[in-house]
Amino acid sequence: MHIRDLGEFPLIDRIRQFLPPTGANVIVGIGDDVAVLAGQGDTYILAKVDSQVENVHFLRHRISPQQLGRRSLAINLSDIAASGGYPEYALVSLALPADTEVTWVDNLYQGLAQEATPYGVAIVGGNMARSPHDIYVDVFVLGRVPSRHLLLRSGARVGDRVLVTGSLGDAAAGLVLLLEDEERKEKGQDQSVATVVRDLSAEDQEWLMSRLYTPTPRLRESAVIAPTGLATAMIDLSDGLSSDIGHICERSGVGVRLWAGRLPISRATREVARSMGKNSWDLALDGGEDYELCFTAPPEAAEYLIATVYRETGTSVSIVGEILPATQGRRLVLEEGHEAPLDARGWEHFGRRKHSGFKEG
Amino acid sequence: MHIRDLGEFPLIDRIRQFLPPTGANVIVGIGDDVAVLAGQGDTYILAKVDSQVENVHFLRHRISPQQLGRRSLAINLSDIAASGGYPEYALVSLALPADTEVTWVDNLYQGLAQEATPYGVAIVGGNMARSPHDIYVDVFVLGRVPSRHLLLRSGARVGDRVLVTGSLGDAAAGLVLLLEDEERKEKGQDQSVATVVRDLSAEDQEWLMSRLYTPTPRLRESAVIAPTGLATAMIDLSDGLSSDIGHICERSGVGVRLWAGRLPISRATREVARSMGKNSWDLALDGGEDYELCFTAPPEAAEYLIATVYRETGTSVSIVGEILPATQGRRLVLEEGHEAPLDARGWEHFGRRKHSGFKEG
Repeated sequence: MHIRDLGEFPLIDRIRQFLPPTGANVIVGIGDDVAVLAGQGDTYILAKVDSQVENVHFLRHRISPQQLGRRSLAINLSDIAASGGYPEYALVSLALPADTEVTWVDNLYQGLAQEATPYGVAIVGGNMARSPHDIYVDVFVLGRVPSRHLLLRSGARVGDRVLVTGSLGDAAAGLVLLLEDEERKEKGQDQSVATVVRDLSAEDQEWLMSRLYTPTPRLRESAVIAPTGLATAMIDLSDGLSSDIGHICERSGVGVRLWAGRLPISRATREVARSMGKNSWDLALDGGEDYELCFTAPPEAAEYLIATVYRETGTSVSIVGEILPATQGRRLVLEEGHEAPLDARGWEHFGRRKHSGFKEG
Repeated sequence: MHIRDLGEFPLIDRIRQFLPPTGANVIVGIGDDVAVLAGQGDTYILAKVDSQVENVHFLRHRISPQQLGRRSLAINLSDIAASGGYPEYALVSLALPADTEVTWVDNLYQGLAQEATPYGVAIVGGNMARSPHDIYVDVFVLGRVPSRHLLLRSGARVGDRVLVTGSLGDAAAGLVLLLEDEERKEKGQDQSVATVVRDLSAEDQEWLMSRLYTPTPRLRESAVIAPTGLATAMIDLSDGLSSDIGHICERSGVGVRLWAGRLPISRATREVARSMGKNSWDLALDGGEDYELCFTAPPEAAEYLIATVYRETGTSVSIVGEILPATQGRRLVLEEGHEAPLDARGWEHFGRRKHSGFKEG
């Protein structure tokens, strides 16, 4: 059997059986956003690695090295945010074709530094290897979290509300624009291809592309949410809400009902969906790479959290669902008032499910 | 300019200028074997990442997934050993073609677990991504070191002896065998190609291949050397002694004289060199990937360290040179009594110097 037939998450579950049990120093091992390790006193150490692979996560001619540097670090900082902690250090492992321009590497590191500096992250090491074909950028981040602030995928309780920061689907809409533009180039400026981009202002296009290329890790928002002690579980939306809420359900042993009509969707993403003849909540539910936070909290705490995050950071937070008993499964209330099963259709490596972005290699 | 024209080490130096200065919590940042970070009290945290890229560090059809798993972790543990510390945790980032067999991944993880268990290392996380072409295994290791045990590339003093554990050049000799075998296959069993392997017993061949594929991280030896407080600098031999001693010279601001006749070279590697019509110390000096420790210590401490490491671990340690003032440069005493400049001719990514192993991509 090939890994494409098994899929990423079953493969990770399978691997765990080959690993010896870990000791008491490992608070959380494989299977959450970050590894949580015993640290000093009441503070845990957080560790996370995530990669960006050329032609899987990005196209070299469509993303600047600065943007790639920022993005490679941001997606890791997002996982630290999801745990309620703060990042401290990063190490960067690169594999690069030998004909890569030196200035390209300079610019990649300028992007990494740009993303690191505002959050006080020090880049303290790394590795550089030759790659025969593709560019690989692997970033490892270390952080800390006071034990009472730690938030995991487990912890959601029946009756909790499901909340998300910011807006959903923008990165997926940006990807639609990018792929349409690639197709137009391949077909030699054939204007019939440009159905989506035609309807969007240059400003909207640029904003959607920035949402795709340089997501904002929600560290400031997490630093408001976690210390309240009111949230019960948290994850960052990398694969898409329909997949990522599933991780919370699995680890917490609960079900969920999401309300499609309450998903926060930007005007630009609504326009992209309309041009495509799709429901905008398809992009919001299944599009990955938004790197917003999704968290759960008791109903009586939800409004307080929304108000506090907005006041402290200016970021809007929306209630998009509620936690159900596991027996009720995972459900989606459609805009028309119908309820349907919530399928996990987000990003999944090795390609059993929906899109895996960009070209197949 | 392409990175192949600049070379790996100048590129790393160049990158450092783009990074903001780090704070007091970063004891050692980019430029040593490991990053050293403030930890709990008198104990520092060690962090290291190193990768194995298909067709650069290994050929998929020549190394078993178990061996690759062991090797990918061992090369990182070796850096922890070089710092005088002990490893605690590992995270594994994989990029794999979608048609990789599930059992291949199983076996890779079994190899990782095999290598982790004897040293008490817990595998606590990782990442899995699709790769369009090559297999990419990136291992990140966290460890600790009591501050008084920390050994760096800096610290060597004029008059110190240069010592190495084990034997040198075995991995390079193993690589010779592997490449010869590859060539023979390409040329359809042409026996004229098999000049080296013909002279070696099957047992010697197997031993050399194991030295190449599954190096032993010298953690037990380091755990004897570091607590004595007698060593002044330490590095692991990944690029080759001629290169790696240069790193100690640069960071310590010293020169060195190595004695070719004193290099510890196994019988099997001597035979490979003889079959090739080469000096065996060419393999010992320039061949990388032995993952032995190279350290410096005052002359009066050298014999004590040799005896103690041998008694505690069974590993032989050899004096192979002495530290000189920087003004005297880096020199090699040849077996015939002549002295020549010591060129750094070891492994270097992006290919300005000698071999970079296996095929060019």
